[in-house]
Amino acid sequence: MVRFLTAGESHGQALITILEGIPAGLTIDFDALNAELRRRQGGYGRGRRMAIESDRAEILSGVRNGETIGGPIALLIRNKDWENWQQTMHVGAEAPETGGTRRAAVTRPRPGHADLAGAVKYGRADLRDVLERASARETAARVAAGAIAKQLLSRFGIEIASHVFALGPLALDDPLAVSFDRARQIPADSPLRCVDDRLAAEMINAIDRAREAGDTVGGAFEVIVRGVPPGLGSYTQWDRKLDGRLAQALMSI
Amino acid sequence: MVRFLTAGESHGQALITILEGIPAGLTIDFDALNAELRRRQGGYGRGRRMAIESDRAEILSGVRNGETIGGPIALLIRNKDWENWQQTMHVGAEAPETGGTRRAAVTRPRPGHADLAGAVKYGRADLRDVLERASARETAARVAAGAIAKQLLSRFGIEIASHVFALGPLALDDPLAVSFDRARQIPADSPLRCVDDRLAAEMINAIDRAREAGDTVGGAFEVIVRGVPPGLGSYTQWDRKLDGRLAQALMSI
Amino acid sequence: MVRFLTAGESHGQALITILEGIPAGLTIDFDALNAELRRRQGGYGRGRRMAIESDRAEILSGVRNGETIGGPIALLIRNKDWENWQQTMHVGAEAPETGGTRRAAVTRPRPGHADLAGAVKYGRADLRDVLERASARETAARVAAGAIAKQLLSRFGIEIASHVFALGPLALDDPLAVSFDRARQIPADSPLRCVDDRLAAEMINAIDRAREAGDTVGGAFEVIVRGVPPGLGSYTQWDRKLDGRLAQALMSI
Amino acid sequence: MVRFLTAGESHGQALITILEGIPAGLTIDFDALNAELRRRQGGYGRGRRMAIESDRAEILSGVRNGETIGGPIALLIRNKDWENWQQTMHVGAEAPETGGTRRAAVTRPRPGHADLAGAVKYGRADLRDVLERASARETAARVAAGAIAKQLLSRFGIEIASHVFALGPLALDDPLAVSFDRARQIPADSPLRCVDDRLAAEMINAIDRAREAGDTVGGAFEVIVRGVPPGLGSYTQWDRKLDGRLAQALMSI
Repeated sequence: MVRFLTAGESHGQALITILEGIPAGLTIDFDALNAELRRRQGGYGRGRRMAIESDRAEILSGVRNGETIGGPIALLIRNKDWENWQQTMHVGAEAPETGGTRRAAVTRPRPGHADLAGAVKYGRADLRDVLERASARETAARVAAGAIAKQLLSRFGIEIASHVFALGPLALDDPLAVSFDRARQIPADSPLRCVDDRLAAEMINAIDRAREAGDTVGGAFEVIVRGVPPGLGSYTQWDRKLDGRLAQALMSI
Repeated sequence: MVRFLTAGESHGQALITILEGIPAGLTIDFDALNAELRRRQGGYGRGRRMAIESDRAEILSGVRNGETIGGPIALLIRNKDWENWQQTMHVGAEAPETGGTRRAAVTRPRPGHADLAGAVKYGRADLRDVLERASARETAARVAAGAIAKQLLSRFGIEIASHVFALGPLALDDPLAVSFDRARQIPADSPLRCVDDRLAAEMINAIDRAREAGDTVGGAFEVIVRGVPPGLGSYTQWDRKLDGRLAQALMSI
Repeated sequence: MVRFLTAGESHGQALITILEGIPAGLTIDFDALNAELRRRQGGYGRGRRMAIESDRAEILSGVRNGETIGGPIALLIRNKDWENWQQTMHVGAEAPETGGTRRAAVTRPRPGHADLAGAVKYGRADLRDVLERASARETAARVAAGAIAKQLLSRFGIEIASHVFALGPLALDDPLAVSFDRARQIPADSPLRCVDDRLAAEMINAIDRAREAGDTVGGAFEVIVRGVPPGLGSYTQWDRKLDGRLAQALMSI
Repeated sequence: MVRFLTAGESHGQALITILEGIPAGLTIDFDALNAELRRRQGGYGRGRRMAIESDRAEILSGVRNGETIGGPIALLIRNKDWENWQQTMHVGAEAPETGGTRRAAVTRPRPGHADLAGAVKYGRADLRDVLERASARETAARVAAGAIAKQLLSRFGIEIASHVFALGPLALDDPLAVSFDRARQIPADSPLRCVDDRLAAEMINAIDRAREAGDTVGGAFEVIVRGVPPGLGSYTQWDRKLDGRLAQALMSI
């Protein structure tokens, strides 16, 4: 069985993933792995952070001579911003002399974030202890694991594509009419990954307006998987159902 | 940690749940437990089966003198229809002489069900081997576990209510305007659990029309939980997030 | 993956096992299943309880027409003594009028048992709430699961035999000299399952003497498994190692 | 709940551990952590490798300002020998120009090791793919996790000591007579951790003789834990029993 754990804070040294259960003998495409990380960083309207980090996954174990060997795969994604955060995020009891500035404790919890619940649960006075882990950046560690899983699936002819079909009130007339092939043709540098260019331009305007107003907009996307054999997952027990597992994976983001 | 497994076929002898991790010292309200099972069987437009079964959970272990003792709780819900299915669903290699009639193998998979995938995965010629487990009736075993969990939560002031706010194209104007208290006031014998009586009557008409046309209608409901303390679940690891766990539980139905 | 949970108290209604992950299409040998339960009850020097119970496993689910169908297998072993314990072990808040006598609460913890730790952990005033679950009888529920696992293994040519090679200071000169075939020839009704009859007679004497002195004697046995393919378990992660898993299974008895 | 995964090959870049479930607010003693790693490397008769590596754990996440913050703790132990193994253990498909020599594939499986089973299971032609992970060095990653667990336990007054009481045919007369305090007084640089100096000298001779003969000797040690509260683990389910869990942890080494 495949399982994985992630670790790492948003402005700490690195994000770390241990992924295990990947069969031996899988040739790793390192470029494709890093392309997935780059894709996570794109998308119109993302925060300033994306411009700072340009993630690359270093594989520390489980791969030899370009091929998995059966052991756990450890992936390390260094936080490039770490050099400016060492005085704030240092591991040891003593802050180092250099490495950015010493930031004040965060004491005002943001609504809609884990700040308050985390501070209560883990007894933290500086909310930074919470928000550094409850951060969108953690998903980079999952993307690294997912990119390898995707390479494994591809060996079995299972392919994945996705597209954005709605943003705020703007939406494709018939999202289900978008075929797998059409979704896969979306260029890697597409800012929104919507198959309708005119709609995409309107969406970009909507994002700009929301940003100016200090607001955000919701959206909807579709993930299409092709080549799935019948019988993945199982109806025999509640926690083996594929629908439930996929839902957990998505809703845990 | 609380965990549970269920077992049992739809027309077999019984549904069985083992639920463990419930603390000792919880007084069990047996009537409330069976009321939840009854509530699962209600709802306008449910199948004929509901009229046959009137589920009651027998507790076989983990409860003594009306109170949990810390050990695993085994729950048994007998299938009343079993007496008519013994010749079809018998456990032993030989069919018994009595107990219903011997039904022919099911060989035509129903679309939208697990029939085909299950037959391929488990190598079954008689699709009944699949559909007996991949059945809505299995949820009765989960309701029994959930009813006990609900009683535990209630000891901590956590209360749950729900209501239907849409069915087909019919929907409340503002579902979020329905308060917890309003949802909880819905009578136990309400056929649809919609807070708007006029809308509920239209929904019932829509169900009747769909049934006559040999069709079904989708719907939407809201579950409201009150009194939840901050800090349930955790942001620290993908599989500890409460959103993900709730999504798995729901989507595995 | 195969997993199982057990439930049930020693003098409650029944022991229950849910076993899942057993592949579909396995023909169940019901006699062999009950023979394993009988074997658990034998062995020279066992307690009085063994004479009362003559365990039989009823399969409630997961098996149809003598063959597994892929779903969870629920096994029920009724406690024959239940009829005499209903006034003591009743599930509901009210004791029934009939069914044995009402036994007083157990308040003196036995050394070497879970009585004290369990009472502290689960807050029980009547130690019976602990000892009814922390009981050797629980292993009957595991034997039922194990018997089915054994039948599955046998389909792959994996066979299991065992023998007692030491009891107190008495021991075979060379336990490792006992072959698989020799161990398997031990008759099912052998009181001690030692391959050396003269030594077995001495062991029986030693048990009798210990019993008269109100004492017990330790012992040692060997389990031999034949036909295991290389590569069961894995060195890749600490909790996948077969040695560790077997050790947990044994030491949890 | 505490859980951990390890990754890393013996001559790869590093060993990695992700440990999670450690409560926030635990002050980490970094020296004590590294002292445990050093202790793993000591012990009379260990292999040449011990002289090369002098392990130190770098904490990459989960600790800030000397204190745990609730998130997963990632630990990295670099393999100092990596610089000499890059041409043999490189991750990418191309071997680098520098970094040791290119070692030939290992094709002769060692008896008593995972070499053969691993090669069969994972389909590896170069047994190095197996033995690099099925290596005693992996335990360094566990020691790092264990060292932090030990610091947590110590906050609850739970203390651990150990000593060697037998080696080959040499043994203390009464191992159980060694008290916790006596075991804890063994100096950190004791080569054998036996409380009897004369016996220890004989043991060292025995190791020397075995080494000269190209052989090894077995031994036995005792771990004593003090201050454990009643009620750790549970009798309620087979896989919650503390005995079983400890046995798995030990036997998976």
